[in-house]
Amino acid sequence: MLEKIDSPGALGSLSEKELEALAGELREKIIATTARNGGHLAASLGTVELTLALLSVFSPPRDPIVWDVGHQAYAYKILTDRRDRFSTLRQKGGISGFPNREESPYDAMTAGHASTSISAAVGLARAKELANDPGCVIAVIGDGALTGGLSYEGLNNAGRLSRNLIVVLNDNTMSISGNVGAMSRYLARIRTAPGYQRAKGRVERALKKIPLIGNGLYRFLYGTKALVRHLFYGSNLFENLGFSYYGPLNGHNIGDLRDVFENVRKIDRPVLIHIVTEKGRGYEPARENPGKFHGVSGFEIETGAIKPSEPSFSSVFGEELCTLAAEDETLCAATAAMTEGTGLSDFAKRYPARFFDVGIAEEHAVTFCGALAAGGRNPVFAVYSTFLQRGYDQLLHDAALQKIKLTLAIDRAGIVGADGATHQGLFDAAYLNTIPGIEVWSPAYFEELRVCLRRCVQAKEGLFAVRYPRGAQTAPPEDCRFDGDAPFTVFGEGEILLATYGRLFSEAAKAAAILREKGIRAAVLKLNRIVPIDEGAIEAAKRCRAVLFFEEGQRHGGIGESFADQLLEAGYRGAWKLFAIDNAFLPHMTTAEALESLSLDAGGIARQTETTLKGE
Amino acid sequence: MLEKIDSPGALGSLSEKELEALAGELREKIIATTARNGGHLAASLGTVELTLALLSVFSPPRDPIVWDVGHQAYAYKILTDRRDRFSTLRQKGGISGFPNREESPYDAMTAGHASTSISAAVGLARAKELANDPGCVIAVIGDGALTGGLSYEGLNNAGRLSRNLIVVLNDNTMSISGNVGAMSRYLARIRTAPGYQRAKGRVERALKKIPLIGNGLYRFLYGTKALVRHLFYGSNLFENLGFSYYGPLNGHNIGDLRDVFENVRKIDRPVLIHIVTEKGRGYEPARENPGKFHGVSGFEIETGAIKPSEPSFSSVFGEELCTLAAEDETLCAATAAMTEGTGLSDFAKRYPARFFDVGIAEEHAVTFCGALAAGGRNPVFAVYSTFLQRGYDQLLHDAALQKIKLTLAIDRAGIVGADGATHQGLFDAAYLNTIPGIEVWSPAYFEELRVCLRRCVQAKEGLFAVRYPRGAQTAPPEDCRFDGDAPFTVFGEGEILLATYGRLFSEAAKAAAILREKGIRAAVLKLNRIVPIDEGAIEAAKRCRAVLFFEEGQRHGGIGESFADQLLEAGYRGAWKLFAIDNAFLPHMTTAEALESLSLDAGGIARQTETTLKGE
Repeated sequence: MLEKIDSPGALGSLSEKELEALAGELREKIIATTARNGGHLAASLGTVELTLALLSVFSPPRDPIVWDVGHQAYAYKILTDRRDRFSTLRQKGGISGFPNREESPYDAMTAGHASTSISAAVGLARAKELANDPGCVIAVIGDGALTGGLSYEGLNNAGRLSRNLIVVLNDNTMSISGNVGAMSRYLARIRTAPGYQRAKGRVERALKKIPLIGNGLYRFLYGTKALVRHLFYGSNLFENLGFSYYGPLNGHNIGDLRDVFENVRKIDRPVLIHIVTEKGRGYEPARENPGKFHGVSGFEIETGAIKPSEPSFSSVFGEELCTLAAEDETLCAATAAMTEGTGLSDFAKRYPARFFDVGIAEEHAVTFCGALAAGGRNPVFAVYSTFLQRGYDQLLHDAALQKIKLTLAIDRAGIVGADGATHQGLFDAAYLNTIPGIEVWSPAYFEELRVCLRRCVQAKEGLFAVRYPRGAQTAPPEDCRFDGDAPFTVFGEGEILLATYGRLFSEAAKAAAILREKGIRAAVLKLNRIVPIDEGAIEAAKRCRAVLFFEEGQRHGGIGESFADQLLEAGYRGAWKLFAIDNAFLPHMTTAEALESLSLDAGGIARQTETTLKGE
Repeated sequence: MLEKIDSPGALGSLSEKELEALAGELREKIIATTARNGGHLAASLGTVELTLALLSVFSPPRDPIVWDVGHQAYAYKILTDRRDRFSTLRQKGGISGFPNREESPYDAMTAGHASTSISAAVGLARAKELANDPGCVIAVIGDGALTGGLSYEGLNNAGRLSRNLIVVLNDNTMSISGNVGAMSRYLARIRTAPGYQRAKGRVERALKKIPLIGNGLYRFLYGTKALVRHLFYGSNLFENLGFSYYGPLNGHNIGDLRDVFENVRKIDRPVLIHIVTEKGRGYEPARENPGKFHGVSGFEIETGAIKPSEPSFSSVFGEELCTLAAEDETLCAATAAMTEGTGLSDFAKRYPARFFDVGIAEEHAVTFCGALAAGGRNPVFAVYSTFLQRGYDQLLHDAALQKIKLTLAIDRAGIVGADGATHQGLFDAAYLNTIPGIEVWSPAYFEELRVCLRRCVQAKEGLFAVRYPRGAQTAPPEDCRFDGDAPFTVFGEGEILLATYGRLFSEAAKAAAILREKGIRAAVLKLNRIVPIDEGAIEAAKRCRAVLFFEEGQRHGGIGESFADQLLEAGYRGAWKLFAIDNAFLPHMTTAEALESLSLDAGGIARQTETTLKGE
């Protein structure tokens, strides 16, 4: 049946039964594709019925649907215009794992970071208002994303609109792992309040049968409903913020969802529809373990077996932090909803009193850690590079300016692979570079991570960052011993210098070997501490005839430019060339493919070095 | 009497009458000092009684008090350990206009940006919990700061604490100008609900008389109060988030405040005390016009006359934007609670439908504007440099990555003067430099601002920033005509090049004149577009024997480093030196004092040039 749905417009005429059958087909396709390509399975399985109901009532792009984060939008992608390309999900040149404006006119906003959808919907609604364009605007946001302050800023600004704006709160009772915070407890209370359910049963179903014609009647009805609800269980937080509230509804009942959407379509004010869904629905292994199946890199469909994870920088970090916590009882760890992803699961079990999952709230995490430190604790905030972008102002004000001791453990620094543009860790080196007084270390191997982490955590004062790549280490070149106290190391000798840091060191070392075979003697400079750059590294570079700097990150504002400045000021007069990611976002592809396409793999580095030397 | 209070501990034994007398003396001191030094008058006048009540019950630093933003903490500064230094407020070497950990042990956190206090208080509370240190933790936050998402992240994380944490919501019914959003309307509803006031009158006053001994009794009483409140007016948003709620109380009644603080001291859970205060209380001109007296640069006490404001970059921006709006009906303007400060008051009056004040919510503002643009509008977000730090991730994801048309009008770029470290605009050039595809223009004079703004607003697509300094322009040097289409201009001739951008151009041009008199011929390169740097500018610099780059901003990641990289790569072999703000925050002093102390004024630039040339 799915093969016949060539446009989402076809869904409106299908019966509830037919839509339910379609839900099954969509789940099969999603499971088959993510088993092979990897992806965000559990969340996307939970929103199949929601997607069908939305598309059978609303007509994007006229009625834009903004998916928060967007990892739950696989069914939407299939049903809009990407059914036949869906097998290319997350592959180089294929479709993105997140909504993408450049991929399809059905994707209202490019997304990837949490909590943006309501703000974006307010913007789209205001634009429609100004253009006298009717149409609905819908934001779909999970209860996890509701822990982010931006979602509240959105609610606060939406609450006074006098035109249609529909927020679907997709409450699957989870963030990526378990949900945290007072809002989550509040939603649970709504879900389970017996008075609430009864009121819904008795009153709301009856009201839902009455067709809504225009806004006068709606207001009357809404008034009645609000009154009834108020009498039964008091006013609701979302109502306090200016929304009409409907729910909680079963998010897997297509008929109910369709009815409600039909009813709220013509309402000229903000509406919040609270639906309850099950993460991983329709695929038992994912339903039983939605955390594990939040994002997977492939699995065996029959058994649900996920390839056992290899040691990764995250797991090494988690291990080492447990060791350090045993030695220092003031050590605390914080995460913004990434306990498992950052390798902190063990720490959370072993040191629950010293472990803080603050929800998807990176700003709060930094300010909170700054104050923990001001209160005499030794906090470590473990966070993905891309998400720490959210805490930039707090890093400046609530960390650096406070002159407190704080360690940032920055995971997924550099290229991340299949998650693509919104998840690349290509900016942290550049934005951390701007923060007064910070020390940034960039280990390339597990052992280096341990040494750097220990060094930073045990330092008495100051702001430290240790940044490391996603996944496993590449094998360290032989004879590359790392001294944890050395801010840089030079390997080999030669008038040509390949300078770099982090994971690219492996590539540069291999490139040097390739060049050696061609008779070009190049030394390799590995910066271990990238901020501040050690003067010794500049002195070493100054003695060379040509310095080529390779950076797995944003060029402008990055480490290479700082190096150039200091080299030039030191009186260097040789050749210089900086290879980095220049003024671009990097789409989804494997890390190896990305390095190759950027000519930052060993072959590319060798080739670019040769070309540069020829041009001298 | 104030002269006798040498430590805040002395306040506990004073009577209500004595405290009220003290309030009068504090107001006099605050008015006298801000009349002379400038400062945040209206907010600080509103919190005098609150401060006295807090300090007569709690004992900082044992019970840390975190002031949100901190511009309302003047009475606190005087009563803790800065009475005799208060006359140096906001002056070079004097005390800061904001709480500052380095200034006093009574200042729990250094502050300046809104909405951080609850998160910080949660951190301090958790630190106390881990250290088994009893003591209270208090956050004082205004209703304006409550529009920022970080405050909600803080509430969400505080709501599950099982130890004391007291949030005082200082509701003065205003942000800097009028307050906006659904939360503000909700607070107004609480304040004015007749049922609420009656319930308070009848029930709460009675309950308040009963002494609270331990938590068992408290829980019983709280249960009763919550029940009563619930029956009268439903549950409360803050209660939904896990707080015990008390209020609204008259924030100028010291006795009432003291009673409530005494009662909540020993409660081992989060409490929110909602007080209503009057901004500007006790000084008629400020009370009548609290927006105008929010931050002042000095006034005449008797009349309340504020020096009429000269034309500023802000006013020129506002004027020009109105002109552009008349020509382009898709043009919209957004501000994050800075209508007056960014010069948008006229625009707001003339184009109310196209004007959006989103509250203190810079993240939302960027995402909202991105979506406005995606919906076909032409948005301009006017924001102070320091506050845009909050929107860094959104600039990357919800602006640059969306490939939409958005203009940032960045006010207070560069040194801002008396507001000091937390308000300096010294990072925007550096963090904007990291954003793929952005164009950043840095006009130095009013006319340039008009040309740049027009150019950016009228461009068909892309992300643009126009950044300009606080206040008035310095007189442009003669014969310095600016071509709006030129990304750079070279003035004069010589083998020595002084390169710079923005306001420093005036200083560099004067420095060139000083050098000329000493027989040194230096040309001046003025970058108008600082990102990306034009190749022509690099070519022009390459021909020189020495290039000195002067930057009113953060060195690392800044424009000077980008310039160095491109110059070195282009094969430049001369001398190079970059003068910028190196790895430091800059405290409060006038802009002229700051430029002089950094040797970035004309004299400093000339001197540093001579020194560099001698060292060649």
